[in-house]
Amino acid sequence: MNDLAKALGANIRAKRKENGISQDALALECGLDRSYMGRIERGEVNITIEKLYKIAARLNCPAGSLLP
Amino acid sequence: MNDLAKALGANIRAKRKENGISQDALALECGLDRSYMGRIERGEVNITIEKLYKIAARLNCPAGSLLP
Repeated sequence: MNDLAKALGANIRAKRKENGISQDALALECGLDRSYMGRIERGEVNITIEKLYKIAARLNCPAGSLLP
Repeated sequence: MNDLAKALGANIRAKRKENGISQDALALECGLDRSYMGRIERGEVNITIEKLYKIAARLNCPAGSLLP
């Protein structure tokens, strides 16, 4: 698996937990499939900038702050 | 066109010019098609995080610094 994607996924997971929301809730609010959100957090997919911004907006943080 | 992609493309173009390299050279060094690099700079495509990091590495700047 790609180290960049893994590190980004870990950052997203940590920020999501900080926000106290479930993976399902985050997926729903970002209009993403639940299983896809799981793959994002495990670093199994190489997301687009647009998805990064959607996730960051819901996690109330700048998109750049999620970057490794 | 997507404002996010347009703003990102403009940032990449400005940083590329700052580095004094051509769009073709940047595309070649990033292993990207020349016409695709043009579309990135015009904000016509929604690039992945991995491509953002490849471009940032070649432009000698943090990936986050290219984000709008």
